[in-house]
Amino acid sequence: MDEPTLKQLIQDLLAGTVTPDEAVSILRRLPFADLGFAKVDHHRALRQRCGEAVYAPGKTVDQCAKIVAELLDEPGENPVLLTRADPDQVAGALGRFPGGLVTHTGVLATVAWRPAPSRAARVMLVTAGTADQPVAEECRAALLAFGLDPQLLTDCGVAGVHRLLASFDDLSHADAIVVVAGMEGALASLVAGITPAPVVAVPTSAGYGAAFEGVTALLAMLASCAAGLTVVGIDNGFGAASAVARMLL
Amino acid sequence: MDEPTLKQLIQDLLAGTVTPDEAVSILRRLPFADLGFAKVDHHRALRQRCGEAVYAPGKTVDQCAKIVAELLDEPGENPVLLTRADPDQVAGALGRFPGGLVTHTGVLATVAWRPAPSRAARVMLVTAGTADQPVAEECRAALLAFGLDPQLLTDCGVAGVHRLLASFDDLSHADAIVVVAGMEGALASLVAGITPAPVVAVPTSAGYGAAFEGVTALLAMLASCAAGLTVVGIDNGFGAASAVARMLL
Amino acid sequence: MDEPTLKQLIQDLLAGTVTPDEAVSILRRLPFADLGFAKVDHHRALRQRCGEAVYAPGKTVDQCAKIVAELLDEPGENPVLLTRADPDQVAGALGRFPGGLVTHTGVLATVAWRPAPSRAARVMLVTAGTADQPVAEECRAALLAFGLDPQLLTDCGVAGVHRLLASFDDLSHADAIVVVAGMEGALASLVAGITPAPVVAVPTSAGYGAAFEGVTALLAMLASCAAGLTVVGIDNGFGAASAVARMLL
Amino acid sequence: MDEPTLKQLIQDLLAGTVTPDEAVSILRRLPFADLGFAKVDHHRALRQRCGEAVYAPGKTVDQCAKIVAELLDEPGENPVLLTRADPDQVAGALGRFPGGLVTHTGVLATVAWRPAPSRAARVMLVTAGTADQPVAEECRAALLAFGLDPQLLTDCGVAGVHRLLASFDDLSHADAIVVVAGMEGALASLVAGITPAPVVAVPTSAGYGAAFEGVTALLAMLASCAAGLTVVGIDNGFGAASAVARMLL
Amino acid sequence: MDEPTLKQLIQDLLAGTVTPDEAVSILRRLPFADLGFAKVDHHRALRQRCGEAVYAPGKTVDQCAKIVAELLDEPGENPVLLTRADPDQVAGALGRFPGGLVTHTGVLATVAWRPAPSRAARVMLVTAGTADQPVAEECRAALLAFGLDPQLLTDCGVAGVHRLLASFDDLSHADAIVVVAGMEGALASLVAGITPAPVVAVPTSAGYGAAFEGVTALLAMLASCAAGLTVVGIDNGFGAASAVARMLL
Amino acid sequence: MDEPTLKQLIQDLLAGTVTPDEAVSILRRLPFADLGFAKVDHHRALRQRCGEAVYAPGKTVDQCAKIVAELLDEPGENPVLLTRADPDQVAGALGRFPGGLVTHTGVLATVAWRPAPSRAARVMLVTAGTADQPVAEECRAALLAFGLDPQLLTDCGVAGVHRLLASFDDLSHADAIVVVAGMEGALASLVAGITPAPVVAVPTSAGYGAAFEGVTALLAMLASCAAGLTVVGIDNGFGAASAVARMLL
Amino acid sequence: MDEPTLKQLIQDLLAGTVTPDEAVSILRRLPFADLGFAKVDHHRALRQRCGEAVYAPGKTVDQCAKIVAELLDEPGENPVLLTRADPDQVAGALGRFPGGLVTHTGVLATVAWRPAPSRAARVMLVTAGTADQPVAEECRAALLAFGLDPQLLTDCGVAGVHRLLASFDDLSHADAIVVVAGMEGALASLVAGITPAPVVAVPTSAGYGAAFEGVTALLAMLASCAAGLTVVGIDNGFGAASAVARMLL
Amino acid sequence: MDEPTLKQLIQDLLAGTVTPDEAVSILRRLPFADLGFAKVDHHRALRQRCGEAVYAPGKTVDQCAKIVAELLDEPGENPVLLTRADPDQVAGALGRFPGGLVTHTGVLATVAWRPAPSRAARVMLVTAGTADQPVAEECRAALLAFGLDPQLLTDCGVAGVHRLLASFDDLSHADAIVVVAGMEGALASLVAGITPAPVVAVPTSAGYGAAFEGVTALLAMLASCAAGLTVVGIDNGFGAASAVARMLL
Repeated sequence: MDEPTLKQLIQDLLAGTVTPDEAVSILRRLPFADLGFAKVDHHRALRQRCGEAVYAPGKTVDQCAKIVAELLDEPGENPVLLTRADPDQVAGALGRFPGGLVTHTGVLATVAWRPAPSRAARVMLVTAGTADQPVAEECRAALLAFGLDPQLLTDCGVAGVHRLLASFDDLSHADAIVVVAGMEGALASLVAGITPAPVVAVPTSAGYGAAFEGVTALLAMLASCAAGLTVVGIDNGFGAASAVARMLL
Repeated sequence: MDEPTLKQLIQDLLAGTVTPDEAVSILRRLPFADLGFAKVDHHRALRQRCGEAVYAPGKTVDQCAKIVAELLDEPGENPVLLTRADPDQVAGALGRFPGGLVTHTGVLATVAWRPAPSRAARVMLVTAGTADQPVAEECRAALLAFGLDPQLLTDCGVAGVHRLLASFDDLSHADAIVVVAGMEGALASLVAGITPAPVVAVPTSAGYGAAFEGVTALLAMLASCAAGLTVVGIDNGFGAASAVARMLL
Repeated sequence: MDEPTLKQLIQDLLAGTVTPDEAVSILRRLPFADLGFAKVDHHRALRQRCGEAVYAPGKTVDQCAKIVAELLDEPGENPVLLTRADPDQVAGALGRFPGGLVTHTGVLATVAWRPAPSRAARVMLVTAGTADQPVAEECRAALLAFGLDPQLLTDCGVAGVHRLLASFDDLSHADAIVVVAGMEGALASLVAGITPAPVVAVPTSAGYGAAFEGVTALLAMLASCAAGLTVVGIDNGFGAASAVARMLL
Repeated sequence: MDEPTLKQLIQDLLAGTVTPDEAVSILRRLPFADLGFAKVDHHRALRQRCGEAVYAPGKTVDQCAKIVAELLDEPGENPVLLTRADPDQVAGALGRFPGGLVTHTGVLATVAWRPAPSRAARVMLVTAGTADQPVAEECRAALLAFGLDPQLLTDCGVAGVHRLLASFDDLSHADAIVVVAGMEGALASLVAGITPAPVVAVPTSAGYGAAFEGVTALLAMLASCAAGLTVVGIDNGFGAASAVARMLL
Repeated sequence: MDEPTLKQLIQDLLAGTVTPDEAVSILRRLPFADLGFAKVDHHRALRQRCGEAVYAPGKTVDQCAKIVAELLDEPGENPVLLTRADPDQVAGALGRFPGGLVTHTGVLATVAWRPAPSRAARVMLVTAGTADQPVAEECRAALLAFGLDPQLLTDCGVAGVHRLLASFDDLSHADAIVVVAGMEGALASLVAGITPAPVVAVPTSAGYGAAFEGVTALLAMLASCAAGLTVVGIDNGFGAASAVARMLL
Repeated sequence: MDEPTLKQLIQDLLAGTVTPDEAVSILRRLPFADLGFAKVDHHRALRQRCGEAVYAPGKTVDQCAKIVAELLDEPGENPVLLTRADPDQVAGALGRFPGGLVTHTGVLATVAWRPAPSRAARVMLVTAGTADQPVAEECRAALLAFGLDPQLLTDCGVAGVHRLLASFDDLSHADAIVVVAGMEGALASLVAGITPAPVVAVPTSAGYGAAFEGVTALLAMLASCAAGLTVVGIDNGFGAASAVARMLL
Repeated sequence: MDEPTLKQLIQDLLAGTVTPDEAVSILRRLPFADLGFAKVDHHRALRQRCGEAVYAPGKTVDQCAKIVAELLDEPGENPVLLTRADPDQVAGALGRFPGGLVTHTGVLATVAWRPAPSRAARVMLVTAGTADQPVAEECRAALLAFGLDPQLLTDCGVAGVHRLLASFDDLSHADAIVVVAGMEGALASLVAGITPAPVVAVPTSAGYGAAFEGVTALLAMLASCAAGLTVVGIDNGFGAASAVARMLL
Repeated sequence: MDEPTLKQLIQDLLAGTVTPDEAVSILRRLPFADLGFAKVDHHRALRQRCGEAVYAPGKTVDQCAKIVAELLDEPGENPVLLTRADPDQVAGALGRFPGGLVTHTGVLATVAWRPAPSRAARVMLVTAGTADQPVAEECRAALLAFGLDPQLLTDCGVAGVHRLLASFDDLSHADAIVVVAGMEGALASLVAGITPAPVVAVPTSAGYGAAFEGVTALLAMLASCAAGLTVVGIDNGFGAASAVARMLL
């Protein structure tokens, strides 16, 4: 019995194809592995289609490695990610599972194992300035792991709008676009105004003056006059990649 | 020459298929109609796929009617919406264009003309409580106009989680889900946790205690631990519908 | 001795061209007229070049009229404005001084007496949407009173950027530009990115969703990546007009 | 006369069983010990049933040790805690009073002396993720000192709701539950929705994106649609343990 | 089969005492009644011990009455409440179910049907000032419905601390205390400092100056130096009553 | 035994000049009168030197009148104030106690009975603009009731600093100064910079643009670079008067 | 001509006792000494009665020493303070002016030269907890420099109200009281409720949970129900001392 | 064809003076240079008149040097700035382009190459205190690069208003004034009240107490009662210089 979900289990029970005793043991064994400090969720890839990520901050090097181990032990060959890992956490996990692909995102890094095969979808990743790069890199690392190789369009801040217009064609025909911008976040409105594609905006904490650690960009993106723009949390590049994966996978 | 976009015009110019003089007259005539108090954008339907909406608050009855007129005058037969209109604005617009479909959203209403033919997409619209209904209605009116007839799942507040689980199957197989919730907005996290579909969360200003006019729900949705959830502004039912249209049209 | 300023008085004293006794009487008589409930400042026009405005909210109909009277009684023939006046305040002031020019700004109005003769400066007044109109009207009424007849460019929201680009030429050659925008306020960044002229941004309380009564537009304008953009308070159309007057008068 | 309270003293005075002179000396001697830098409150254990805690931040190693000494000198054998102590403060206090039980909570620690004997109450301590662990550990250390050995349920984030449902039975029959969660804090609503037990929610500063150092979780818990949920301050694990002690001791 | 819970149903299925077909029909019929606009939760009383409340704001007169009807139709004879109802909603519900007990809370009211028989618990309800009365009344109405008749202690603001000390005895021996206070909310700290009982603090929006609609009281209660104080949302008298019911029922 | 305080009572008890039985009856009778809905504090005038005020908002006409009655019934002949009363509350209280002095503060009013005889102190009350007048009037009404007849200095906004300098002498020699200002509140800093007198700043909710209902003025006053400036809550004219009374009575 | 003020100079000019030429040189020489990086204000002691303080943060060691030198060079023998100085700034200033009195306030320090002779005023300095000590020390250092030797009352947090009541007598008869408190800041309300003396509240950034770096205490003090309490900025011990000096000097 | 703008290109195309093929190559070559990690905008100097600045934070030493190189490679000889550079970034850029002028702004620095020749404009740069110096230095460095040599007026805090009045004449006749102030930011209002010149206010994060990292000064400047004051973001000295350049170049 491969990779059942909770729902399927209930249905199987109701259908009689699984006995109550079997159900109890399945229920105990399958939905997650209890490592004591963490309950590893083997079903998320199924439920959410795109694999499982381990968020490194606050976990020890050993905890990171153990959760990665548990996930890689899964038969489904889904992608596994370790996000926002510091150099020690990266080294610890790579030491045990050498095949991971490391993407640096400022001082931290994303590691991806078992990336999905590349798909044909046209995903664009647009950034406003150099300071937004670490967040964009996290997003790109996750998109690559999900099999979605994004086209990059960097440093397109709204103060020089002609830099964006030069890519008008690509933006118009994209399947999904992620816009990563700090400061006043206006780039997201501008992009959403010239494309019919779904646009996911990621406010970043980059900026000075009155950027307020990303709050200004966040509010501006939420209040955008371009209908249909959606937003994820500040600096949440992984979240934007997951949103795109929900749309395209 | 039907409905060119700014981009196409530039390309035609570069290609020589349009003369500069023709270009000038096209440029002046096509992209928008200048009514003096408003520049009506005839290309948005093309650029953004789903038609044009007139946001009624702050406009006179006459202004609403005139912009609707300009949009309905367009050859493309795209849907036209009048949103958050008060009874006078509704009456004024319907008096001139009787065929509009009126959806009440609390004391205001949405009117839709020329709705798109219904499509096969499975869209779900989930609300947490009765107080979220006006926002959900605005979203539903727009989805219907875009040809997306959503399945409703009302009053699924997280305090009684079994009410949601009863629709586990539908949620798992939806093409897109809109979650409308006020208070602590936890329903969005819960839904996103049990489905691989794209989930657009709409925080509502419903609630008391520490709901702070929707800010609490907004923050909670943005900080959700369910990866890939995206968010629109407070009470922005139309925005959520547009986001779904960007994904599915 | 016409219209001395405090500074001139001190200098005259130091130079001996005014005796101490004269100085005392000048000091008591000149800088302001004490109406009991208000100290009318006859020197502001000199000090600030553009005339005096009476802010109506919180004043009785009679107080408004009396302060206007005091200011019109001044020999200098500077413009006098009554801003944000309700219909009763307008009627009361016009009843006594019929020549005032009334500009409606939503339910309130601006009244201007003794407008300055028109000047040659190229001032532009750009708005994002219909809902920003009342604030723009207040700005325009003040600019007109100061002798600055602005060119209007309405409904240029960033979601349809081609509407703005059609006025590229005028924006590039303006002497000063006021941008009035609510929602995410991105229009100000966009305009400042394509013109070398001074740009004064006025955030408006127009909008819904996460516009937060103008705070979002305010923050976005302050955090703009377009260098040299300056900002006034929310809905402060009069302030923006005064800023332009400081630059051009 | 053992451990009178202020109230008893006033009553004794009114009843005449204590003379005024005795009262003065009791008043001066009993309610607290004045160490100069701190007034140690020997009556709190009586008044609040669960012992006294010394909050270490901002106190010198010596001050911590002296207050602990004063409290351990009390005849009542109530538990004594030193909370949020850094390694030096821990070492200093243990050096003088070796018997303390140390619980690490991130880089800080809780030390407990004279823990109360274990009681039969069924207390549950539920956390959303690994990052909430330090706060949960502080809570657990205090509960243990109060004689309340909690059952732990870690890593039950709402994105994988089946992990929580597996403990449905225990949650339904608990005497009190503490939920420790950061991010959007939805776990508290979910738990309160499936149990009739008192639920104390502790928002944590764990999280990224729009978690805003615990403010999002705090607001979400306060705005919960699950009636009867109560909340303590951000990261206040000790406060939650004290709240449970007030209910069960 | 009386009033099973979802958990029991799953257990019965696993145990084989309920057939899959029976389970399906039970699942569809029991946990809630779908009225179209609302899913009435018949199990909350069981799950949460204290009955079900209908929050009136945003519901029509007819919707209120129908949900009350559905709940009163339940065999269990649990209390049913209609909270924050306006006069029309009260009249509509009482017209159909005359036996309800009406408690006025400012312009709104709470209606209670089938109140639980009175219990022996010593619950105290302490308010800081007259302006906190409506919130306290909502709390008291709910407590009475749950069978908990609270002792009232009104107008005990911290500026006159002797008014509180006069009730020292009662506070010390209470089973639970609800403190309702606006302004700086200090009363909650003071009460929690002199009693070992559980204290639930309700910040109210009463106040002026820098009370900020209850935010100041809310923050002050959360930051209280009196360990073990817990807090509910602003003006949430019903929530406090429910918290007490969770502790004492 | 006239007007004892709680402290005196305790001392008398300790000294033996009052028997326990007498103390009990004094304790029950003296410190406050319990009207059921309010505990009237007869000792505040003693404890706080300046009389007692009844804050009208949220109280019925009858409650206002009854509390005023209770306070006027006191032998001490201290001033009694009813603050922020609406016309009905004023009429109700004056109907029963005709001698009250009414001061209008916008739509509300302050009523004062038994004002203290006038004292020699030099108190100044400085306002920035006409819109600050209602708050200044509340402050002035209270000062007059306390026997402190303030010198008024109205409409001294910092934009015309010479209006303030004309009163340099009076400001330098005042015993206490209250500054009432909205908008950016800079007047308080300016006044405190030119006088050695105690300055109490009252931020008002007057203003537009970015005044944010008084928050801007409040923060600016708290952050003043003029050392020794103190601040009360927004619009709290009565509080400022009480602060001055504490200093000068 | 010793230490004239700007006002006196203007009056002398008007009176003719100073010639214009003398006035110019006085004006240039007297009011401040321009050190290039700072304009040292020699008149503040006169204008504000209590001496001059140099705020060290952001100034170099050399700048601190030079400004102190300039102030000590003044003939008036007023106190001179250097506040919030780091060890290098302290050493640099003491190296040059050895007589300064150093008070440590956490890692920083206050240095005072030429303290005023001690006066008879009864000033009290009350703190809520050990963590408030650095702010209280800054306040005390300034008070001592101004000749006001305060009585200390430490660790009187409201959770153990009897610790405060033991000093009832002193509080009742103080000339001025400074209350230094973090967390929920309730101590200020409590003190102001039992004394007729002026009470200046200093919120501190001490605390955890929901103390929000002092904002909670600040708001609570501003919203206090104890009339006449005034407040200075967060951690502003020097400001509170200056406020007391304005009252008592 | 020297330095065309996008607009000119479109016009040339429409006029036929540029062929489509030429246009494509111009479009690809001219508006910006794509360095991979950054799109260097060679036209900003034209569009915005004052040169181009590279914001250093978040860029590597090498990236800074490369962008500076690209800009210096431009034929137009416009000024080039590197702002907020740390010592390594400064050294890296100077190593490659030795001629840059370094201005230290706290721990960071501004470097300017090819400063414009000095112009006759009277620009004033006024600061409130020593702590505002780094922001003022950034502003001054940029003004100098733009050919605008500002007159400095340091340490003019509003608490000693006579220091400002001594420069009344210069302020009255300035062409533009930048006011740099933290704390309560009142200096901007004061300056704008005594001059008719354009005033650009820069709030700084300097300050303690309730300065809230510059938010207080920002709000106070936006809410200023001095009409026509405009504001840039917190600490944005470069932005203020650019605003002045827009006005005067």
